[in-house]
Amino acid sequence: MHFAVIARVLGVLLMMFSLTLLVPISVSLWFNDHNYMTFLWGFAVTFGSGLAIWAPVYKSRADLRTRDGFLVTALFWFVLGTFGSLPLLFSNGLDLSITDAIFESISGLTTTGATVITGLDTLPPSILFYRQQLQWFGGIGIIVIAVAILPMLGIGGMQLYRAEAPGPVKDNKLTPRITETAKALFTTYLVFTVACAVAYKVAGMNWFEAICHAFSTIANGGFSTHDASILHYQSPAIMMICTVFMLIAATNFALHFFVWREKSLRHYIEDAELKFYLSWIVIGVLVTVAYLAGSQAYSFSDSFYLGTFNFVSTMTTAGFASNYSSFPSFLPYMLFIFAFVGGCASSTGGGMKAIRVLLLYKQGVREIHRLIHPNAIIAVKVGKITVPDRVIESVWGFFAMYVVAFAGMFLVLIATGLDLRTAFSAVGACITNLGPGMGEVAAHYGDINSPAKWVLCFAMLLGRLEVFTLLVLFSSAFWKR
Amino acid sequence: MHFAVIARVLGVLLMMFSLTLLVPISVSLWFNDHNYMTFLWGFAVTFGSGLAIWAPVYKSRADLRTRDGFLVTALFWFVLGTFGSLPLLFSNGLDLSITDAIFESISGLTTTGATVITGLDTLPPSILFYRQQLQWFGGIGIIVIAVAILPMLGIGGMQLYRAEAPGPVKDNKLTPRITETAKALFTTYLVFTVACAVAYKVAGMNWFEAICHAFSTIANGGFSTHDASILHYQSPAIMMICTVFMLIAATNFALHFFVWREKSLRHYIEDAELKFYLSWIVIGVLVTVAYLAGSQAYSFSDSFYLGTFNFVSTMTTAGFASNYSSFPSFLPYMLFIFAFVGGCASSTGGGMKAIRVLLLYKQGVREIHRLIHPNAIIAVKVGKITVPDRVIESVWGFFAMYVVAFAGMFLVLIATGLDLRTAFSAVGACITNLGPGMGEVAAHYGDINSPAKWVLCFAMLLGRLEVFTLLVLFSSAFWKR
Ligand SMILES: [K+]
Ligand SMILES: [K+]
Repeated sequence: MHFAVIARVLGVLLMMFSLTLLVPISVSLWFNDHNYMTFLWGFAVTFGSGLAIWAPVYKSRADLRTRDGFLVTALFWFVLGTFGSLPLLFSNGLDLSITDAIFESISGLTTTGATVITGLDTLPPSILFYRQQLQWFGGIGIIVIAVAILPMLGIGGMQLYRAEAPGPVKDNKLTPRITETAKALFTTYLVFTVACAVAYKVAGMNWFEAICHAFSTIANGGFSTHDASILHYQSPAIMMICTVFMLIAATNFALHFFVWREKSLRHYIEDAELKFYLSWIVIGVLVTVAYLAGSQAYSFSDSFYLGTFNFVSTMTTAGFASNYSSFPSFLPYMLFIFAFVGGCASSTGGGMKAIRVLLLYKQGVREIHRLIHPNAIIAVKVGKITVPDRVIESVWGFFAMYVVAFAGMFLVLIATGLDLRTAFSAVGACITNLGPGMGEVAAHYGDINSPAKWVLCFAMLLGRLEVFTLLVLFSSAFWKR
Repeated sequence: MHFAVIARVLGVLLMMFSLTLLVPISVSLWFNDHNYMTFLWGFAVTFGSGLAIWAPVYKSRADLRTRDGFLVTALFWFVLGTFGSLPLLFSNGLDLSITDAIFESISGLTTTGATVITGLDTLPPSILFYRQQLQWFGGIGIIVIAVAILPMLGIGGMQLYRAEAPGPVKDNKLTPRITETAKALFTTYLVFTVACAVAYKVAGMNWFEAICHAFSTIANGGFSTHDASILHYQSPAIMMICTVFMLIAATNFALHFFVWREKSLRHYIEDAELKFYLSWIVIGVLVTVAYLAGSQAYSFSDSFYLGTFNFVSTMTTAGFASNYSSFPSFLPYMLFIFAFVGGCASSTGGGMKAIRVLLLYKQGVREIHRLIHPNAIIAVKVGKITVPDRVIESVWGFFAMYVVAFAGMFLVLIATGLDLRTAFSAVGACITNLGPGMGEVAAHYGDINSPAKWVLCFAMLLGRLEVFTLLVLFSSAFWKR
């Protein structure tokens, strides 16, 4: 392990992160909401900490190797999640406990969007902006890690994407690859954000709200500047813009990049994961809209808009304004189960990722064929690519650990006193990075007990760390040599 | 497919099954409960049907091949489950609907033990006896299928046991093997049943009740002659006898057979699955007893007896008298989750089976080591045996299909109008063949709607058919050629 280099990377990361706090300072000064000191303090502490970590090791030079990648990835979320809470903690308008501030920060950065804050509509604009910005930076962090690092680490079958990242492939040297890839992806991410903000503005939001919501839409984050979230605007146009951009954000950003670079839609059309994903979106939307319309609870147009928006919002794990938990009959649970599918790989969507579900399905079908023809050699193919057994095994491992982690955290939440519905949906909504749950956590997470909030912080991180990044760190073999 | 031979087997099976109805007739005559006509009709219809199926094809001779095994296994449960309902339907003391009669019959035969009948204490002895006997025959059916057929079919990794069945191995010819194996296992099964009945008698039951409860204990079935089940006797001795025999019944019966034949405990001691299984039993019992004692809800001795009995009853999926759903805090859910582990392979226990969970765990650990050493070749070993990757893949397939089946049936139950707790626990208690659930199905299944009961019948069969036996039948490839 190159601890000195890891410390240097972490120090730089913290200093870079501290610079992002300068934007809310400008927002505060612009709106004159008397909150700039909050962010100035946040900036000072974060920058100072980063400097203190970086200074002693700034001369360390070594290429990071695969194994360092686990630690860097895990630290990325843990450290930024913690420091991101500082402005929320320092703000005198919010009055959050440490638990709540860290919960909100991790929820923002992991793009979960589970909030402990109510009364958003009356908060200072700079605080509102900061929450949205957390999600936006979290979103690009997720994409870069997913495209540049996870395929190298081989977590949960993501080695399948090893050859597909933009930028040069230099066996297991991480640093140059990450820089190149990050630039390409960031540009793509920025273009979509601008497009989304403009669309929101045209549909009737003011620029501040348009930008804020574009941030959390492209991140599939789900934070909003209103308690009623996107539904606050009572505008079908805004709901449909949000739906389209949630879907874009739940698509593999490497695909977006290639489509843009080669000026050809071929990459979208030929992608087996995207095809699989959109098929389920269509099926899910049809079932939801049909059931809502049939249940007479909503008019047909309301059924169409609410059904489409809520299904997409839940399956992409954006979790915007989801009143899905008040839907009739099996719909809340169906939408919730689809959140476990989540988005495509290398997107800002959460869940287990469509490619993994596709591979599980294909392996299930192969298993049936193998039972019928025990001696046949049957390959699992995704598009034209034959998937190595090694990748499929990783996906199974991922799936099993996901289920075990879910069950374990569920039991702990029940032990803290939550009821079945709340515990069940809270773990699910956090490990999938969906956000809104059911029962006591349908609207917000403010009222549940502190130990439960810490468990849920862990769940959000576990989801974003693809379970294994974290499990590896608990293995003694990892720390040897 | 050898349809004629399959029909012959089925006909013989039905005629043999009809003969078992002669026992309740004797019971009815002995107790003079005026119910023998019920069973006489049941016998006549079942025997007649068997004869009608058998007669046209009785000359068909061909060795059954692997592929026929799927159909025979599935038909075994479906057909016996249906015909087993006849005496319950004909009985004038019960007044059951067709749905309820079939539910009770399938629940008995699959050793689930979910009942729709209340007021057991006042039922005619012959009916009570018949329910217990259904479980007993179901139990030996499960064991024979698990030892002699599933390893051949290779379902869910059970090919691991291909070489271990008692009796001669003649590649994929099923018939001679099944006959030999069935005899050996039946003897073992009978010996334990007699031992259990004698123990119950000594502890204070009368012979009728001792035999009835021995039937459902060795089958890990959970049916009883009292609404309060084993707790009716208020006897720690009976609870502990039940606990011991549930554990024996949840152990691989091939192990029991080998221990008996070789007069050596070596097979128990060396078995990795049993070691793994008993470790979890000990851990689970300790946690349950400690929490009950600590919660002050029970005295220490009550905590010990109730905790031990209920944990073992739930994890083995016997489901006797489980008042686990009234336990405090996370205990009901913890016990419930352990039912998904279930018993050992080739036992009468349900769930996913300890060996599969052990393999999932070992593969999870291997996955972590592979992440750290990507180029290392690491074998998964159970005891001294290196498990082929093919077996592990089958286990993953099994696990994923189990989860998907659970989620699907859960949604359907919610759609029929059940609440979360009831739907969740009912599917779980039926697919694991545990029996008692929570919420509306904590005490019995009589009050839920009919469509839900049919879904749960399917769940019980799916559990006993190890999911894939049924899925294979839905594949077009299975029916080709
Ligand atoms: K979200
Ligand atoms: K049972």
